[in-house]
Amino acid sequence: MAHEPNIPLLPTCFIGCETPLAESRIVLFGAPFDGTVTFRPGSRFGPAQMRPDSYGLEAYSPYQDADLEDAAVHDAGDLDLPFGRVERALAEIGAFSKRVVEAGRQPLMLGGEHLVTLPALKAVHAKHPDLCVLHFDAHTDLRADYLGEPLSHATVLRRVWDELGDGRIFQFGIRSGLREEFEWAKTHTHLHPFDLDGLDTALDAIGSRPVYVTIDLDVLDPSVFPGTGTPEPGGVTFRELLAALCKLRRLRIAGGDVVELAPHYDASGVSTAVACKVVRELAVAMSARESQQEKPGRF
Amino acid sequence: MAHEPNIPLLPTCFIGCETPLAESRIVLFGAPFDGTVTFRPGSRFGPAQMRPDSYGLEAYSPYQDADLEDAAVHDAGDLDLPFGRVERALAEIGAFSKRVVEAGRQPLMLGGEHLVTLPALKAVHAKHPDLCVLHFDAHTDLRADYLGEPLSHATVLRRVWDELGDGRIFQFGIRSGLREEFEWAKTHTHLHPFDLDGLDTALDAIGSRPVYVTIDLDVLDPSVFPGTGTPEPGGVTFRELLAALCKLRRLRIAGGDVVELAPHYDASGVSTAVACKVVRELAVAMSARESQQEKPGRF
Amino acid sequence: MAHEPNIPLLPTCFIGCETPLAESRIVLFGAPFDGTVTFRPGSRFGPAQMRPDSYGLEAYSPYQDADLEDAAVHDAGDLDLPFGRVERALAEIGAFSKRVVEAGRQPLMLGGEHLVTLPALKAVHAKHPDLCVLHFDAHTDLRADYLGEPLSHATVLRRVWDELGDGRIFQFGIRSGLREEFEWAKTHTHLHPFDLDGLDTALDAIGSRPVYVTIDLDVLDPSVFPGTGTPEPGGVTFRELLAALCKLRRLRIAGGDVVELAPHYDASGVSTAVACKVVRELAVAMSARESQQEKPGRF
Amino acid sequence: MAHEPNIPLLPTCFIGCETPLAESRIVLFGAPFDGTVTFRPGSRFGPAQMRPDSYGLEAYSPYQDADLEDAAVHDAGDLDLPFGRVERALAEIGAFSKRVVEAGRQPLMLGGEHLVTLPALKAVHAKHPDLCVLHFDAHTDLRADYLGEPLSHATVLRRVWDELGDGRIFQFGIRSGLREEFEWAKTHTHLHPFDLDGLDTALDAIGSRPVYVTIDLDVLDPSVFPGTGTPEPGGVTFRELLAALCKLRRLRIAGGDVVELAPHYDASGVSTAVACKVVRELAVAMSARESQQEKPGRF
Amino acid sequence: MAHEPNIPLLPTCFIGCETPLAESRIVLFGAPFDGTVTFRPGSRFGPAQMRPDSYGLEAYSPYQDADLEDAAVHDAGDLDLPFGRVERALAEIGAFSKRVVEAGRQPLMLGGEHLVTLPALKAVHAKHPDLCVLHFDAHTDLRADYLGEPLSHATVLRRVWDELGDGRIFQFGIRSGLREEFEWAKTHTHLHPFDLDGLDTALDAIGSRPVYVTIDLDVLDPSVFPGTGTPEPGGVTFRELLAALCKLRRLRIAGGDVVELAPHYDASGVSTAVACKVVRELAVAMSARESQQEKPGRF
Amino acid sequence: MAHEPNIPLLPTCFIGCETPLAESRIVLFGAPFDGTVTFRPGSRFGPAQMRPDSYGLEAYSPYQDADLEDAAVHDAGDLDLPFGRVERALAEIGAFSKRVVEAGRQPLMLGGEHLVTLPALKAVHAKHPDLCVLHFDAHTDLRADYLGEPLSHATVLRRVWDELGDGRIFQFGIRSGLREEFEWAKTHTHLHPFDLDGLDTALDAIGSRPVYVTIDLDVLDPSVFPGTGTPEPGGVTFRELLAALCKLRRLRIAGGDVVELAPHYDASGVSTAVACKVVRELAVAMSARESQQEKPGRF
Repeated sequence: MAHEPNIPLLPTCFIGCETPLAESRIVLFGAPFDGTVTFRPGSRFGPAQMRPDSYGLEAYSPYQDADLEDAAVHDAGDLDLPFGRVERALAEIGAFSKRVVEAGRQPLMLGGEHLVTLPALKAVHAKHPDLCVLHFDAHTDLRADYLGEPLSHATVLRRVWDELGDGRIFQFGIRSGLREEFEWAKTHTHLHPFDLDGLDTALDAIGSRPVYVTIDLDVLDPSVFPGTGTPEPGGVTFRELLAALCKLRRLRIAGGDVVELAPHYDASGVSTAVACKVVRELAVAMSARESQQEKPGRF
Repeated sequence: MAHEPNIPLLPTCFIGCETPLAESRIVLFGAPFDGTVTFRPGSRFGPAQMRPDSYGLEAYSPYQDADLEDAAVHDAGDLDLPFGRVERALAEIGAFSKRVVEAGRQPLMLGGEHLVTLPALKAVHAKHPDLCVLHFDAHTDLRADYLGEPLSHATVLRRVWDELGDGRIFQFGIRSGLREEFEWAKTHTHLHPFDLDGLDTALDAIGSRPVYVTIDLDVLDPSVFPGTGTPEPGGVTFRELLAALCKLRRLRIAGGDVVELAPHYDASGVSTAVACKVVRELAVAMSARESQQEKPGRF
Repeated sequence: MAHEPNIPLLPTCFIGCETPLAESRIVLFGAPFDGTVTFRPGSRFGPAQMRPDSYGLEAYSPYQDADLEDAAVHDAGDLDLPFGRVERALAEIGAFSKRVVEAGRQPLMLGGEHLVTLPALKAVHAKHPDLCVLHFDAHTDLRADYLGEPLSHATVLRRVWDELGDGRIFQFGIRSGLREEFEWAKTHTHLHPFDLDGLDTALDAIGSRPVYVTIDLDVLDPSVFPGTGTPEPGGVTFRELLAALCKLRRLRIAGGDVVELAPHYDASGVSTAVACKVVRELAVAMSARESQQEKPGRF
Repeated sequence: MAHEPNIPLLPTCFIGCETPLAESRIVLFGAPFDGTVTFRPGSRFGPAQMRPDSYGLEAYSPYQDADLEDAAVHDAGDLDLPFGRVERALAEIGAFSKRVVEAGRQPLMLGGEHLVTLPALKAVHAKHPDLCVLHFDAHTDLRADYLGEPLSHATVLRRVWDELGDGRIFQFGIRSGLREEFEWAKTHTHLHPFDLDGLDTALDAIGSRPVYVTIDLDVLDPSVFPGTGTPEPGGVTFRELLAALCKLRRLRIAGGDVVELAPHYDASGVSTAVACKVVRELAVAMSARESQQEKPGRF
Repeated sequence: MAHEPNIPLLPTCFIGCETPLAESRIVLFGAPFDGTVTFRPGSRFGPAQMRPDSYGLEAYSPYQDADLEDAAVHDAGDLDLPFGRVERALAEIGAFSKRVVEAGRQPLMLGGEHLVTLPALKAVHAKHPDLCVLHFDAHTDLRADYLGEPLSHATVLRRVWDELGDGRIFQFGIRSGLREEFEWAKTHTHLHPFDLDGLDTALDAIGSRPVYVTIDLDVLDPSVFPGTGTPEPGGVTFRELLAALCKLRRLRIAGGDVVELAPHYDASGVSTAVACKVVRELAVAMSARESQQEKPGRF
Repeated sequence: MAHEPNIPLLPTCFIGCETPLAESRIVLFGAPFDGTVTFRPGSRFGPAQMRPDSYGLEAYSPYQDADLEDAAVHDAGDLDLPFGRVERALAEIGAFSKRVVEAGRQPLMLGGEHLVTLPALKAVHAKHPDLCVLHFDAHTDLRADYLGEPLSHATVLRRVWDELGDGRIFQFGIRSGLREEFEWAKTHTHLHPFDLDGLDTALDAIGSRPVYVTIDLDVLDPSVFPGTGTPEPGGVTFRELLAALCKLRRLRIAGGDVVELAPHYDASGVSTAVACKVVRELAVAMSARESQQEKPGRF
């Protein structure tokens, strides 16, 4: 009954992501987990809020002159993750990501807190040993541990470094951290403080290597993105981030994520609109020819 | 991929309403339309907000000692209705409702503004010529027209009367309207002002006739249901409405709706929780044996 | 241009209060002052919020079977009161009230904090030496001074007592205060704690004497009236207050006020709807024959 | 009574717009209609919210070194428009605008959704056949129809084009639309995407022709204007729009509007303050000598 | 400098709880932990919000005719608990509670989610082997495990039963749970569904045995307590809970807690006011002679 | 008990300001007063909100490469100020500030409305006769009086001028005021309208003279700082203010304040985060060698 064509029903997926799984090249999914957040939780509500609000945008990007409907994205829904059991939640994200990667598709994950990046990135790394990471964030996320805990939103990039080693992580917009973290970064990552200066050089350095793009939305100034757990004033403008996203078309993006939308802290809906537009632009960039050199396989 | 059993995904339907269409007896669907609202719009957002928030409840009702999972409800999603075109929106609701009714199932509609009741009720009436209406509301909704307009949230019960005639409409909780409406009701409907007194008598009067139950949630006091376009202080308590709902098990309910949740006006989420609990109790009551004397057909 | 009949403009006064000043018997006005509030300010915004929101109600009261449009109320707008200068603000309220009273009309004031009652009541008392006060509130408001200050929202009824003396103040719903205030009240006012029990007896005791009715809306439980500076759980329900208001028809009400709506604390709008409905019911009760034994004069 | 000089009342009009109708050159009025909005309604509340909040500003503009009190603006209040009846609402706006124009005054309308521009612009066009349009917006608004409906907030500039034809519409800040709209604009309007680049050239091109200025406030970045139905990240900053407004002094502005404030989505009040400041600057620019070459007539 | 008496500073403790630790009989402290919450987190913010808002109340309770200042309460502040590490957080709560109990004082804990009850209760039980539990809640909290996890807000009373065994737990207000939980309770706890009926009998049954009182504030109807993670309509009124609290004076209360305030979900502040008033009444009841039969020791 | 090291308690002071009074060089304190505010009150809640939210930041400033923990700041808490008694409140602020100054420490005050600057500045001036003022604000604050009242948030810089005379006040970011104020400033203060242009020149002009820095946070654009009583669009960006703050290290700062955060108007918490970061940067700048040429004395 619900499938008869002449009584239309509202879609429930992200706008422009109605490609069936078998025909898709990018698999979008949500990882609604915020269990290690110390300050203000709520990013668990991010993915569910994005889908209906994405219809306030158009699928067409005038910036990239490309349409999300042409990007072959399948929206797989949200994982059902257990709270209070960090390792198990990460394991489920990792298993799902692994399957996407092994089927020759690009995972595009909606957080959740930043720790969810770790298992997704590991799954991509397993396939792409020469993987680099492009990291947009307000915070260093480079602590060795947080109150003795190695797995935390405040340590996630350090754990990524454990995986990838020196010189493979390119960080932008960083403006908050311990003095020790800034010091440590000098010899281990390419940390660009405060803004996006140096991006072109970094993209050149990455070159044709596969890259995982992780966007902690708090890289944006809280004026345009107040809906996040730890707002850090002094971030980049939306236009600045947008210009950066358009440049990513030339990269070979093996996977990516957009994390740390906590929509309850912004009743205006603007933060969710921002998150959706970032997802659209990232997905469109991921669908550019450079990223998709491989023929996707069967599931 | 998304269907593999060992990586669970979050459900997107109303809690406990996962029965496939073919096996269902009740079809739940949303009618997100608020185009004739004069004061504060926003009930268009009601159905989409209810689904995720329904998981804050349990499927089991300790009041009726019955579980929504046993009620054979299929959640069909939300209709895609055009704004600014009242007649066309109503036509789509009517067509969908007709199909549900003709397939031998009970429609359970989530509003939207109260005007959406009209086409759904007409569809039920077409099958059940002796249909009665049980109406819970703060407002009379009995105007002949509103600023010259016959189709309006303020006229919907008058339009229902056009359909059914005298003595078939039982109204409860009514505490706002024009003096003329209260006068008119004296000879045309069974209007019980202010509260639910007289419900037992009304249920007896309805007897075994088929009944359409329409619940405008603003019948509740705005203390527990602030999230509505036109809050009217002095309503019934949640417990009073709950007790009434439990009594409906003895009726033969041919269809029903729950309308006028405008969730943006209640950031606490309580109004949505209230709406979900009313839906659960109504669905469970509709699934009692008395309502389901017919074997559902094929679609 | 704006007055041509065939292009209607939205009214800006309180619903049903369009009676011209010369023909009015009740003069409604706002006193948007909250300068002595110690905890949470904001009642200064009460009157301005009430007017547009009053159109969410009807002018007709089914409880009293009477219409506000028949109550001969003129809405005079809001006084422009200086902040940080308590005495001068009170003087302006007093001057305005005096003029209303001397013209043979009943003042009906919208607060503002409770201290605004003092000058209005004094103006009424100047004309009616045998004036009683009927006081609904959560708080005693009987301190001799507050941190050394005699003029405060926390002392206003004590100042009224300075004016009227023992036995003329009837207090209902009181559930917060110092132990000393409750003690003091035993010999000076008729204080009914917690609820409205004893109202009938009080109305009998007042008899045909003129009475000033002051309603601090926080007498209501904060479930239905959260929009106030000092919410005090455990108050009366809206229905209980409504029943009390209907009984006031038998009194000879010389003036009244409705105070302490701070609308910013309740984004749902329910508190404002509650305030408007209380104003409507009080105005309708004030327009009953018993209150209006005098022919109003000229201005 | 209310008119005695020594008891001041708070004004109810927009700040600095107390010029009597007969002496005015600009007539400000509200068109609180949002009936065709598909995503998030609420611009119907814009005009009523602006008036009291305008007093958070000063009437004096240090940018233009001019005072709104010298601009001869009369605030006529808000039209009473029917919901659910698009054509009738537009007809009333048109009739009111026509009267303003025919009396030799400039209409300055506060929306409401963007569709309200159409009848006001038509009224101005009837007097000024060589009218141009200066359009600030995030969205193209150039669809031929929206879900089959020709009258919609998403089609309004296309309907304006039906009226004016090619080359008369100058669009700025556009960053959202269908690919087809951007294509269509290339041969029919002067569409400047993303920002205000090219404004000086456009002002030169308009020259001394009469111009209608329509400002959809969502041209602003949602960081500073979250209170709108369809926030679109990546807009112009307030300073950029302000600089543009100051340049309009050299134009001959025959009428204008400021639309799409939906204040409920921004509880901070900033969006309303922004809207008020835009209105002030536009009104002051409209009052510059270039705009007012005609002596206003009688009403 | 800050201690000079003639320049007063605002207190930072809960109102009326300024008794020095050495002279105290009750030790109030916060356990801001919500790490196992599955639906909506935020109770971690409860204790910090309560302290400043407690000054909207008075220290005097007219219901019990007793003053919190006479109850010898010391406010020790909030524990610093790690997120994402359930066992360690519970261990810290347990250690702190143990010290309070061993020093002969009554712990009064502010949650946090309900799971924090477990370690505090265990500490009290270690001293009082015949301990009973009086439990107010909307939810059964009797699951054996939650998604395989034994330590959860949804299992806490089951874990308490593991500690105390059959017949020692008295539950009131319960209106949500699995059918299995209601069944299980029949033979293991004294579960009173829906309301507080049967409280007097339960108090008699407890008699002079020491009792731990745990109040999950969602036992209240969400009309008066919307600020909680899982609002469940149909709860008890504030007056009903208040009446129950006054009856507790006759018990011998060895410890207690008030949990599940999530203040961000109620911007009005009412939920926090409710929580504070419950804390005040519970503390005053705990200070009644029956509870304090022991002389407190040294720390 | 609360002091045992192995059960950590949450701090209650501003992050990084745990230096004991005796060892401090800067004394941070709150002046929660907003009694003369005419438009929207609420800055009284600023200091109490800042302390817990400051833990969303780090103590380390990567901009100045300095840590607040090294700045020797003691957080003394908030003054208890009477509402409705302007002079007395100012006297208490003055007395406290005097004691700080006389003990050879720098006061760093958190407002409250801007009028609180006056007594603090006077106390600093008493010790430093050649004091200059560096003033960041959206508003001139130069009225001779406000509705006849000399002490007001709208007159505070004029009162400062009464104290210091011509040429000692450097104003930046000013974009709102009466035409008369802008005129008056031309001959009495160094007023830089709209932005921070000219700051370097001003810092040179101040040179080694002691300076009081007063930051009305509404100098920031309301996009990033909506939480204030009188938002004025068109302000400076956070980055612009931050760059200015970093330059202050070369000054000899004798005292300072950060005022006009009204946190209730920004539920997202961003405004409070902004205020905290400004406080951190100002405190760090105040602790640079240039500011601290004096050895602090005893209290």
